[in-house]
Amino acid sequence: MDGPFFSDLLRPELADLRAYDAAPIDVPVKLDANENAYTLSDAARADLARELALVDLNRYPDPRATRLRELVATDMDTSPDRLIFGAGVDEVIAMIVTAFARPRPGQARARTLFPSPSFVMFRISSLARGVEPVTVPLDARWDLAPEAAVLAVRETRPNVVFLPTPNNPTGNALRPETVRAVVEAATDAFVVIDEAYFDFHGVTYAELAKTRAHVGLLRTFSKVGLAGLRVGYLLADPALVRELEKVRQPYNVPSLSLRAAELCMTRYREELLLQAKKIVESRDVLSRDLASLPGLEVFPSDANFVLVRTARATEVWKGLVDRGVLVRNFDGPSGPLSGCLRITVGRPQENDRLLSALRTLM
Amino acid sequence: MDGPFFSDLLRPELADLRAYDAAPIDVPVKLDANENAYTLSDAARADLARELALVDLNRYPDPRATRLRELVATDMDTSPDRLIFGAGVDEVIAMIVTAFARPRPGQARARTLFPSPSFVMFRISSLARGVEPVTVPLDARWDLAPEAAVLAVRETRPNVVFLPTPNNPTGNALRPETVRAVVEAATDAFVVIDEAYFDFHGVTYAELAKTRAHVGLLRTFSKVGLAGLRVGYLLADPALVRELEKVRQPYNVPSLSLRAAELCMTRYREELLLQAKKIVESRDVLSRDLASLPGLEVFPSDANFVLVRTARATEVWKGLVDRGVLVRNFDGPSGPLSGCLRITVGRPQENDRLLSALRTLM
Repeated sequence: MDGPFFSDLLRPELADLRAYDAAPIDVPVKLDANENAYTLSDAARADLARELALVDLNRYPDPRATRLRELVATDMDTSPDRLIFGAGVDEVIAMIVTAFARPRPGQARARTLFPSPSFVMFRISSLARGVEPVTVPLDARWDLAPEAAVLAVRETRPNVVFLPTPNNPTGNALRPETVRAVVEAATDAFVVIDEAYFDFHGVTYAELAKTRAHVGLLRTFSKVGLAGLRVGYLLADPALVRELEKVRQPYNVPSLSLRAAELCMTRYREELLLQAKKIVESRDVLSRDLASLPGLEVFPSDANFVLVRTARATEVWKGLVDRGVLVRNFDGPSGPLSGCLRITVGRPQENDRLLSALRTLM
Repeated sequence: MDGPFFSDLLRPELADLRAYDAAPIDVPVKLDANENAYTLSDAARADLARELALVDLNRYPDPRATRLRELVATDMDTSPDRLIFGAGVDEVIAMIVTAFARPRPGQARARTLFPSPSFVMFRISSLARGVEPVTVPLDARWDLAPEAAVLAVRETRPNVVFLPTPNNPTGNALRPETVRAVVEAATDAFVVIDEAYFDFHGVTYAELAKTRAHVGLLRTFSKVGLAGLRVGYLLADPALVRELEKVRQPYNVPSLSLRAAELCMTRYREELLLQAKKIVESRDVLSRDLASLPGLEVFPSDANFVLVRTARATEVWKGLVDRGVLVRNFDGPSGPLSGCLRITVGRPQENDRLLSALRTLM
């Protein structure tokens, strides 16, 4: 045996994976992670603290997330047995890929299909589970034509199709006709519509997930201001939810996260939605201001971030860090995101600081 | 296509799995889940509430769990790069099985090996990931002889061996010579020593995990009074930890759980360890009292629960529920745990209520 004992025991796909390494860069203005720039109000924090002190941490969390499930079911106008919760959509995606890992006849490995570029966890989660990720490229405007999507479904025969709308990191929503075409073409696959950024766009395909057994909908509490809680969920057919429950860790959502998410649904909801509204307004202002800078291509956004492209993007990124502003750098020697930076919409004074730094740098 | 669209797309192993269904039975005395019967003091709760109110929930958790990692590393007298955290040991087990899923030459599926009976998640986690669980039976005293264990390793050629000590639901620790024999015999497998119940036993194999590259150690915050947080970890070789990091969801431990776990390490530690000490004392009293009841076989315990066997166990279990006491029922028509009930050690008045109910029932 050469190398460490595990050389021949670990999935070969791990060799191609790098651990997600979010090396902390400590700057005053953090616009890199598509977080909500606003925190809960002091009143909400005080109320939350009082409630969390009442949680008996010696007990396991409710494995059914009963109360949160009821609240979300009411909010989504659906029944609780159509919902399954995870530690963020990351974990829900992992559950889906874990369950749907059976290769079709004639395929060496099961496949997932999703646009490129899109959320990195579709690929990582697939590779880590021996499932083959297949991508359909977005065009130069980050658009996916219905015909291209349907062709990819027919040629790939995936077990799972992920349709993120709005898409990360491009920011744009998919065309409704593309979503509908994929849903019609992929009736023998699980079509997962990822609405992580729903709160900044407002267009939902919930009705499809409620009426079509092979369609699921992903939502998360992360983008609307609760990234620290790690709560995401899938809305899907009850029969499929029962199967996915078999691969869910029974106590996957901790008690403090459950309780905080419940309170965010019942008591701090308006506050959070008001923040989302402010972010949407700021996004439109920021997009316009960015577009006025020379040498910066600004892509339209339906989310809480704006993707831009520029020459010397990595240099610009470093210059921003030096000026106390962290954005996400997707630049590289090649590939569709070459030259791209993703800028999370911040509070107005944060956006101003970014713009002022960019003006110096461009 | 017969049946729902997913019939031929889901892993076939799911057909054999049932979702973990901890249907809530609401009784005053809850001795079914191996939880710590004591809660944090009011002072600790108030302090915790103050600290949790300071957590910015709009931000993602620290993906490296930097502060908690440092605290645990100091406590375990090891370096931070030997630790990886999960949402309870459940998730750490899932990460291990996910990563070690590559079949050896000549094997159709990768294998895990562990004693039977033992923790159910070894089996469920394996099946859900297409890995074949193989068990080595414990004898009538729940003992595993070194020779039997080594023979099972040689015949099975597993990728991963789980050695839970103390074992759940039997309660007894493995013999040190068995652990050492497996470690010597399975040098080309990952030997994971599960010390979830360490705080009630005090014997550790941490030194093996620190000195042998193919040995890992599982620990959890759950049994010592923090089941609600969902924090567990693995101590292993840094090179292996780097590989496992590739299958970890980057933000798997929520901010509130991270912060609470940190505070439990720094401020509430003594309080929690004192509770563990009381539970050990109560366990020995409870075991003696149970042994004095007619028709009850009581197995020796090194953990925070006691396994007993009786005729008509399910009837006794129902009688206990009627009397407001919930224990865990492992009874069935056949199998090694037939006739067995697992009783978590409670507070003295809870144990008394259990004993008094049992006296009526036996």
